[in-house]
Amino acid sequence: MKLARIARTGPDGVIPRLVAVQPEQKRVIDLATAERLRLERQGATQEAARRLATALFPSSMAAAISLGEVFLAAARQAIETAPEEAVMPLLQYPQTLQYPQTDRKKEEVEASPPPAVQQGSVYQGKPQTSSGFAPGDLQWLSPLDPPLLRDFTAFEQHVQNMSARQGQPIFKEFFQAPPYFKINPLTLIGHEQEVPWPNYTEYMDYELEIGLVIGKSGRNLSPQEALSHLFGVTILNDFSARDIQGPEMSSGFGPSKGKDFATALGPWITTCDEVDLTRLDMVARVNGEEWSRGSSATMTWKVEELIAYASKGETIWPGELLGSGTVGTGSGAEHGKQLHPGDVVELEVQGIGVLRNRIGQPEPRGWEPEPRKSRISN
Amino acid sequence: MKLARIARTGPDGVIPRLVAVQPEQKRVIDLATAERLRLERQGATQEAARRLATALFPSSMAAAISLGEVFLAAARQAIETAPEEAVMPLLQYPQTLQYPQTDRKKEEVEASPPPAVQQGSVYQGKPQTSSGFAPGDLQWLSPLDPPLLRDFTAFEQHVQNMSARQGQPIFKEFFQAPPYFKINPLTLIGHEQEVPWPNYTEYMDYELEIGLVIGKSGRNLSPQEALSHLFGVTILNDFSARDIQGPEMSSGFGPSKGKDFATALGPWITTCDEVDLTRLDMVARVNGEEWSRGSSATMTWKVEELIAYASKGETIWPGELLGSGTVGTGSGAEHGKQLHPGDVVELEVQGIGVLRNRIGQPEPRGWEPEPRKSRISN
Repeated sequence: MKLARIARTGPDGVIPRLVAVQPEQKRVIDLATAERLRLERQGATQEAARRLATALFPSSMAAAISLGEVFLAAARQAIETAPEEAVMPLLQYPQTLQYPQTDRKKEEVEASPPPAVQQGSVYQGKPQTSSGFAPGDLQWLSPLDPPLLRDFTAFEQHVQNMSARQGQPIFKEFFQAPPYFKINPLTLIGHEQEVPWPNYTEYMDYELEIGLVIGKSGRNLSPQEALSHLFGVTILNDFSARDIQGPEMSSGFGPSKGKDFATALGPWITTCDEVDLTRLDMVARVNGEEWSRGSSATMTWKVEELIAYASKGETIWPGELLGSGTVGTGSGAEHGKQLHPGDVVELEVQGIGVLRNRIGQPEPRGWEPEPRKSRISN
Repeated sequence: MKLARIARTGPDGVIPRLVAVQPEQKRVIDLATAERLRLERQGATQEAARRLATALFPSSMAAAISLGEVFLAAARQAIETAPEEAVMPLLQYPQTLQYPQTDRKKEEVEASPPPAVQQGSVYQGKPQTSSGFAPGDLQWLSPLDPPLLRDFTAFEQHVQNMSARQGQPIFKEFFQAPPYFKINPLTLIGHEQEVPWPNYTEYMDYELEIGLVIGKSGRNLSPQEALSHLFGVTILNDFSARDIQGPEMSSGFGPSKGKDFATALGPWITTCDEVDLTRLDMVARVNGEEWSRGSSATMTWKVEELIAYASKGETIWPGELLGSGTVGTGSGAEHGKQLHPGDVVELEVQGIGVLRNRIGQPEPRGWEPEPRKSRISN
């Protein structure tokens, strides 16, 4: 199942709606509408049917996922019984996923050098119409509104590449436990939404990651237990202000302004049953040109270890989001490149789809903190 | 106004309820109950009065604060008109706030050495009955359920003390902009709730901080604009696993497992009109013994600068929480001390109250990540 959120307008303004997406059938099903109509056909009044349908399929995906199997069963039923009134066309569907299916073994993937830049994209220079969903047909939102967003660092090659760029050795803690920091979950944007460019950076970059959506509470889980707590996967673009991120990381407090301004997620969440997490090809393109290519097969820390580690000493909750961290070569910085206003970034992950975002114009300059001097002599 | 959340049990289980606290009158008012009864007196049916009252005073403080001035006006009215049915007694009130009111100037405060440990506490060795609110009368929850929790570092003396402890110079980024990291907001606990001890630490510590509650949305604010976006203040205890926090900070990704397991907040939120943020005395006691004493007057980065910085390139939202960071001397580590299971930590801030928590027993050992070796030779 592929589950997303879109914005729809009604008498009370714009409301996020949960939808099921069927890309092959080029259609999207509004789950609350489908369920309301089903209940009405069973004899419920419209008012009562609406009440129950919006309780099952609220605006919040995290709230829906918190219903557990009740949500998935209701979604299946709504999809199967959806009448035409609950269906919207998916006018522009990415015709092909632009990577060859690889059968490379893990060792080969790890041994291969960063790929040369390749041409060939669903973008093809016409961002409005040639890829994914053209602006105007559906207004996508972040498929998830997580109460917490942890971003892990699970791929050694990315860490090696970033360290080499700064002439530093890889930090030894990476090999002890999967490191993570937390990103502001209130700045998540969806497919085709514009990326705000904060006024404090001149070096914008993308990061090609898989987003892991928690489906069930748990605490102090083992990796063996952890996978059953995963609801599904999506694509995550951890946009990064590299010139700010560096000093923030040297301070010891980790990335904050360098990462918090925007994270893209989507286009939808694919439930676990539809993907093999151990071998998902991952590709990034900028303005149609391939910049990054990797595979989830190269994760040093496995998905089940990330979930187990998150649950150590903390209860994890349905709707939480974990980022896999950037796949090796999965950022501009690893290639000495950066993004510019107006650039279009497409991330593609096998079994999920294409997440596409355009970079916005820089915000006007504003207040800057006035540097301080020490008032204490040690 | 002092606003809190308590747990009450009904036919649908335990439900968080918003309350107004009047410590001097030794009473607590259930806001939804007071408002429902007021509406009923005006002719509303009980069902309709309950619907409107719980929309004004839901279980979520963040959702209530998002109503803006509507919430505050309704709370004032509910308090003024509250009949006895909406009032609960506050059986155990901290009789005295155990610090002398100081009139020291900021320079004197900064120049003074860390205080010697002093005796004298509301705790007095009998945690069950002598301080604050005894277990059994009211079950306090975190007064806020924030969608985001940023913890700043605003006090130079704390940074100097912590750096000196490790034989390192203070990190220079502190003087350029107020650093922050993010804490898991899903592990917040309230007054008198037990602090879980995660299985991966042997060094538990407290941190004496002020919690700043955002009341109004904003983006790219100046410090002059920022204070009007503050709803109120509370006390924040950023419990810290020091043996884990160190390696996490050297990794560059900042504190995660070292801080995420628990943060205490409360006992209530005091609205801005009742406190002078520029000179709040702050005290910490462990098992009745004073370990820490400081003042908000010593902040290097001011409250309005923290809010303005948070809003740079990111929209801040009602109900968000900012930590001030630890006041100088405001942790055990600064005194070469640590907490043990069963210890009782009291944080006291002038104009707010006393936040008290007992440290729990360590959780049993569980899964540990298996260290990796590099698979890539550079």
